[in-house]
Amino acid sequence: MKRIAVMTSGGDAPGMNAAIRAVVRYGVSKGLEVYGIMRGYAGLLEDDMKVLNFSDVGGIMERGGTILRTARCQEFKVDKGRQEAYKILKDHEIKGLIVIGGDGSLNGAALVAAESDIKVIGLPGSIDNDISETDMCIGVDTCLNTVVENIQKLKDTASSHERAFIVETMGRNCGYIALISGLTTGAEAILIPEVKVDYQALGDKLLAGRKRGKINSIVVVAEGAASAYTVARHLENRTGYETRVTILGHIQRGGSPSVSDRLLASRMGSAAVQAFIDGQSNVMIGIQGNNIVSVDLNRALQKKKELDLSLYDLANTLS
Amino acid sequence: MKRIAVMTSGGDAPGMNAAIRAVVRYGVSKGLEVYGIMRGYAGLLEDDMKVLNFSDVGGIMERGGTILRTARCQEFKVDKGRQEAYKILKDHEIKGLIVIGGDGSLNGAALVAAESDIKVIGLPGSIDNDISETDMCIGVDTCLNTVVENIQKLKDTASSHERAFIVETMGRNCGYIALISGLTTGAEAILIPEVKVDYQALGDKLLAGRKRGKINSIVVVAEGAASAYTVARHLENRTGYETRVTILGHIQRGGSPSVSDRLLASRMGSAAVQAFIDGQSNVMIGIQGNNIVSVDLNRALQKKKELDLSLYDLANTLS
Amino acid sequence: MKRIAVMTSGGDAPGMNAAIRAVVRYGVSKGLEVYGIMRGYAGLLEDDMKVLNFSDVGGIMERGGTILRTARCQEFKVDKGRQEAYKILKDHEIKGLIVIGGDGSLNGAALVAAESDIKVIGLPGSIDNDISETDMCIGVDTCLNTVVENIQKLKDTASSHERAFIVETMGRNCGYIALISGLTTGAEAILIPEVKVDYQALGDKLLAGRKRGKINSIVVVAEGAASAYTVARHLENRTGYETRVTILGHIQRGGSPSVSDRLLASRMGSAAVQAFIDGQSNVMIGIQGNNIVSVDLNRALQKKKELDLSLYDLANTLS
Amino acid sequence: MKRIAVMTSGGDAPGMNAAIRAVVRYGVSKGLEVYGIMRGYAGLLEDDMKVLNFSDVGGIMERGGTILRTARCQEFKVDKGRQEAYKILKDHEIKGLIVIGGDGSLNGAALVAAESDIKVIGLPGSIDNDISETDMCIGVDTCLNTVVENIQKLKDTASSHERAFIVETMGRNCGYIALISGLTTGAEAILIPEVKVDYQALGDKLLAGRKRGKINSIVVVAEGAASAYTVARHLENRTGYETRVTILGHIQRGGSPSVSDRLLASRMGSAAVQAFIDGQSNVMIGIQGNNIVSVDLNRALQKKKELDLSLYDLANTLS
Repeated sequence: MKRIAVMTSGGDAPGMNAAIRAVVRYGVSKGLEVYGIMRGYAGLLEDDMKVLNFSDVGGIMERGGTILRTARCQEFKVDKGRQEAYKILKDHEIKGLIVIGGDGSLNGAALVAAESDIKVIGLPGSIDNDISETDMCIGVDTCLNTVVENIQKLKDTASSHERAFIVETMGRNCGYIALISGLTTGAEAILIPEVKVDYQALGDKLLAGRKRGKINSIVVVAEGAASAYTVARHLENRTGYETRVTILGHIQRGGSPSVSDRLLASRMGSAAVQAFIDGQSNVMIGIQGNNIVSVDLNRALQKKKELDLSLYDLANTLS
Repeated sequence: MKRIAVMTSGGDAPGMNAAIRAVVRYGVSKGLEVYGIMRGYAGLLEDDMKVLNFSDVGGIMERGGTILRTARCQEFKVDKGRQEAYKILKDHEIKGLIVIGGDGSLNGAALVAAESDIKVIGLPGSIDNDISETDMCIGVDTCLNTVVENIQKLKDTASSHERAFIVETMGRNCGYIALISGLTTGAEAILIPEVKVDYQALGDKLLAGRKRGKINSIVVVAEGAASAYTVARHLENRTGYETRVTILGHIQRGGSPSVSDRLLASRMGSAAVQAFIDGQSNVMIGIQGNNIVSVDLNRALQKKKELDLSLYDLANTLS
Repeated sequence: MKRIAVMTSGGDAPGMNAAIRAVVRYGVSKGLEVYGIMRGYAGLLEDDMKVLNFSDVGGIMERGGTILRTARCQEFKVDKGRQEAYKILKDHEIKGLIVIGGDGSLNGAALVAAESDIKVIGLPGSIDNDISETDMCIGVDTCLNTVVENIQKLKDTASSHERAFIVETMGRNCGYIALISGLTTGAEAILIPEVKVDYQALGDKLLAGRKRGKINSIVVVAEGAASAYTVARHLENRTGYETRVTILGHIQRGGSPSVSDRLLASRMGSAAVQAFIDGQSNVMIGIQGNNIVSVDLNRALQKKKELDLSLYDLANTLS
Repeated sequence: MKRIAVMTSGGDAPGMNAAIRAVVRYGVSKGLEVYGIMRGYAGLLEDDMKVLNFSDVGGIMERGGTILRTARCQEFKVDKGRQEAYKILKDHEIKGLIVIGGDGSLNGAALVAAESDIKVIGLPGSIDNDISETDMCIGVDTCLNTVVENIQKLKDTASSHERAFIVETMGRNCGYIALISGLTTGAEAILIPEVKVDYQALGDKLLAGRKRGKINSIVVVAEGAASAYTVARHLENRTGYETRVTILGHIQRGGSPSVSDRLLASRMGSAAVQAFIDGQSNVMIGIQGNNIVSVDLNRALQKKKELDLSLYDLANTLS
C-alpha cells in the first residue's frame, strides 16, 4: 500500500480541516495510507506524525483551525534540516507529501520537490488570497464573511452616531480582504497596499459625504496599507470627527468554514491525492473558474498575484 | 438623460437588493435615470414604478428579500398584456429594462426583447442555480450557507441520539442545493432529481453505516426528488430507525446575503448597466470563472443547466 | 477521594456540554473524582462510564449536543433494571449522581434518590422550558435564537411576496418556544397548546391585516397545538392565500450554545457539585431571578410549569 | 388623546429599536399618541420630532442601532438649555417622556422629572450592564454573544499556533462584558477594572498553563482595566510569547438583537407606557428575576451596580 502524508503549515485558514478530511478519505478510498504530520515542517523534523483513518477525520470539516496544527520552523530553512526531514519521510516510506498553506509553506514544498524524490502537491490555504494561478485560496471566503458580519454590526451603531469608524483587516502585502469587505459593506473608503494612501483626499471625501447628508463613515484599512490608529489620527486632524478603531486581528483566521470553503477544500484535497496517483509532482492544485486544475508550483510561487483594481473602482462608484 | 428600469421577479433570492443598488448607483454615475418597477411584471402592468436615486438604495445591500418586491403575473403571459406593458414603458421613455430573476422571469425578459425595441438585460437571480451560461446565480451562496448552518445544528443532536434525520431542501428540477449542502456537511445520503432514488439501497447504506459504528444518519433530499416524509417512511420500514423530518422551506430564500452574493450582485448589476450603455440587448449577465460576461439570453434559457455529477460521486466518497 | 457521576438523558439541549464541563472541573477542583456515564440510564445499565479529568472537557463548552450522548431506556422503568443500576453505581463507589435532562430524566433521578442511598442532584436541561421551580432550563435561550434567526429569514422573503408562512416549532405540551419566538419576530399569530386554536378567528385576523396593508403573514405554531400542514389547509380554505410550511424539527436542539446558556450551565453545573458536597440530595438546581437555587426535586416535578400568558397578550398587542 | 414622547440617548445598544416599537405600539393600543424625538436631548432642543404610528415601527425590532439615532448634548447640561427643552415639550403638549439609555441619559431624565411636570420613565439601555436596580440592561445579551462569537473564532486559530491572544472589550468602569465573555469562552485570564491587574501573576499563570500542556492562551481585558497593547507588552516581556491583539470596538454595540434583548425591550417598553398611564414618574423600568418592575429612578442612579465577583472565581475555577 502506498503511503502519503499531509500537513498544514503557516498561518491557518478556515477550511484546512475540510482539506485534510478530503485528502484522508479520498486517499483511503484509493487504497493509500495517509499520515498526518503535526505542526507542519516543525513536526516533520520531530517525526511527529500518525496514520489518519477514515473515522479520524469525522466531524472536522465544520471546524475552524487545523487538527494537525501549524507552526513556523527555522530549521527547515537550512539545508541540514531539510535533509533530515527527507530522511524521516523516507524511513516512513512516504512517497507523496501534500502541503496545505500559504506562500511560505508552498515555498518549502517546492524545495522538497526539488531536493528529494518525494512527490509534492501544494494546496493554497491563505485568507489573504495572495497566491497566483488560482482564483481562490482555502479560507478566503470564510474570512471575508467574518469581516463583513463585523463591519455590518458597526454600521448599525455608525448610523446612530456622528462618527468615523476605522476597521483594520489583515493583508500585509495584499489588499484583497479589505477591498472585498469594503466593497460589500459599502464602506466610504478602502485603504490597501496596492493604492497609495492620500490622507488629504480621504479627509475631503468624508467631509464631502457629510455635506451630502451622510451621518456615518466607515473606513476599511488593510494592515499593510496603514495602522488603523494612524488613519484615525489623520482623519481627526483633518475633519475634526471623533474616530473609533476596531482591530479584527486573528478572529479573521477562525470560524467554521463557509460552504464555499468546504467545497473548495473538499475538491482540492481529493484532487491533490488524484494528482499524486497520476504521478504528478511539484504542482499546486488551484481553481480557475469552476475547474480544479493542477499548475506548476514554481510558476504559482514566482508570479505575483495581481489584485483586480477594477473592483476598487467599482467600490468607489457604488459607495 | 437616458432612462432605464429595473425589476425583480419570481422567487426572490438574497442579493437581489445588492443588484438593485448596483444598477441604480452605477446607472446614476453614468448619467442615467433609473426607475424601480414594483412587483415585477405585475407592477409594470399597473404602472407602479418610481425613480430610484443614489440615496434610495442606501443600506439595502445587506438586506434579504427585495425592496422592489416580486409577484407572479398571468396577464404578462398573454400578448395583450405585454403590449400594454410596452406602451407603459414607452410612455415613460424607458429605453432599457433590467430584469433580475430566475427562469420564468428571464423568459419574460426575452419576450420583451423580441417584441419591443426596449433593450433588455437579464440577471440570473435564483437560489436553485439552475440557469445556464453562468457558473453561479445571485442567491445561491447565501442559500447554501443557510442550509448548511441548519444541517450543522442537526448534526449536534444527531450525534447525541440514534436516529435518522431527513432534511428537505428546495430544488424542484435541480438538485444543486441538496447536493452541495449534503457534500459540505458530510450527509450520509443525498437524494436529487437527477439521480433515481433507490430506497432499498438507501436503507442498506444506512444499516451498513450503523454497523461500522456510525451513530447518526443525515439524509438530504431535494423537494424535486421526494418528500422528506416519503423518505422517512421508506427508511423506517426498511431499517426500523426512528426518523425525524426537517422541512426548511422558504427560510432558504431569506437572510442577509453572503459576501460572495453581494460581490456577484454588485458586479452583475453594474455590468448590466454597462451592457445597456454599450448598446447590447437580449443578453444575460453571467459569471464564468472570475469573469463577468454577457451571453445571449435565448441561449441561456434554451440550454439545460447540467449538474456536475462528479460532485455527487465526491460526496459519496468523502461521507 | 469521593466519587460522583454525571449523565445527560432524554432529548438533548445546547449547553449540556457546558454543564458537564462545569461539573467535572468544579468537582475536580474540590477534590472529587467525576465519572461520565454514557447514554444516560441506558449506558448506566451497561456500565458504560469513564473518569473525566480536567482536560477531557476542554473545548466542549461551545459545542452543541452532549459528549456523553443520550438515549432512552425502558429497562430503567422497571424495578429490576433500577436495582441493577444501583448495584453498578455502588460497585464503582459512586456517592453522588448528577442528572442533566428534562422531565422524564429527572423523574428517573427522583427514583434513584428515593430507592438508593446515592445522593442525586438534577439539572433542568430542556429546550421546552417546561420544568417548574426554575425560570429557565439549559438550552432554551439557544433554541429560541435558532428559531428566531430562521423566522427572520422567512420575513425577508415574506415581505417580497403575498403569502402566509406557517412555522412549526417544538413544544408538545408547552408553547414557550412558539410564544417567545413569535413575540420576538412580530409574528401575526401564535398557536400554542395552552390556548384553544380558533381557525376562523385566525383567518379573519390575517384577512384584516391584509386589508390594513400588510403584505405578508407569519404564523408560528407549536407542534402540540397543531401540525403546520393542518394550519396551512385551514388558512387556505378560509383566506384563499397561498401558504408555505417550514418544519424546523431537531435543528432546534442543536447549535453552539448562546452566552446565556453557557453561563447558566456553568453556574448550575458547579452548584450541583456544591450541593452534593453540602450533603444535599433529591434536589434540582434552578435559577430564580439571578439566583442559583436548590429546590426539592419532587416538588419541581409535580408542579406544572405555567406559561406566562401575559406575554401572549403582549405579542398580540405588539404585532 | 394624551401624548407621550420617546427618545434614545447616549451610546446605542441592540434592542433599542425593539423598545421603541413596544413603546409606540403599546401606547397606540392604549389610545396615546407617541412622538419619536430624534438624536436624544440634542434633537429635543432642536424640536426634531415626529409622530410615530403603528406601522412606522414595523420591521425595526430585528435591527441594531436606533431609528431615532442618538447624540450627546452639552446644552442640556445647563439650566437654560433644559428650560428650553421643557418649553418645547409643553408646546407639543407632551405629558410623558420615555428615555432609553445608559447612566448619563437617565441622569438627564431624572433632571426632567425634578424640574418639570412632565412624567418621566427611564429604560436601561447599555451594553455595559452597569445600571443598578435591574438585573439586565437592554443590549447586554446581544453584546455578549457578539463578543463570544468572535473570541470563539480566535480559539480556532489559537489552538493551531503557540501564542497568546489579547482581546479588548468595552467596559470603562464595569467589567461585566469581559467577565462573562471570558467565563463563557474559557479564557485563561480575565482583566477587569474591579480587580487589580497583576501582570506578574498573569505571566506566571500563562507559563504554568503552558507547562500543563496548554497550547494557546486567550486573555480578555476590559478597556477600563488596561489597554490590550499594554497587556501584550507585559506578557511578551514576562513570558517571551508572541502576542496578538484584537480590539473589538464598536462592533459590540451593533448587530440584530438576540431573542433575550428583544423580549426584554418589548416587555420594558410596554411597561414604561403602562407606568405612565398609571401616573408614575421619575421611575426606571427594570427586570428583577423574571419580573418587570418599576423602581425609583434616583435610587437606581445613585446606587453603584456591584459586579458579582463569585463569577470571577467561577471563571478561574473552570478555565
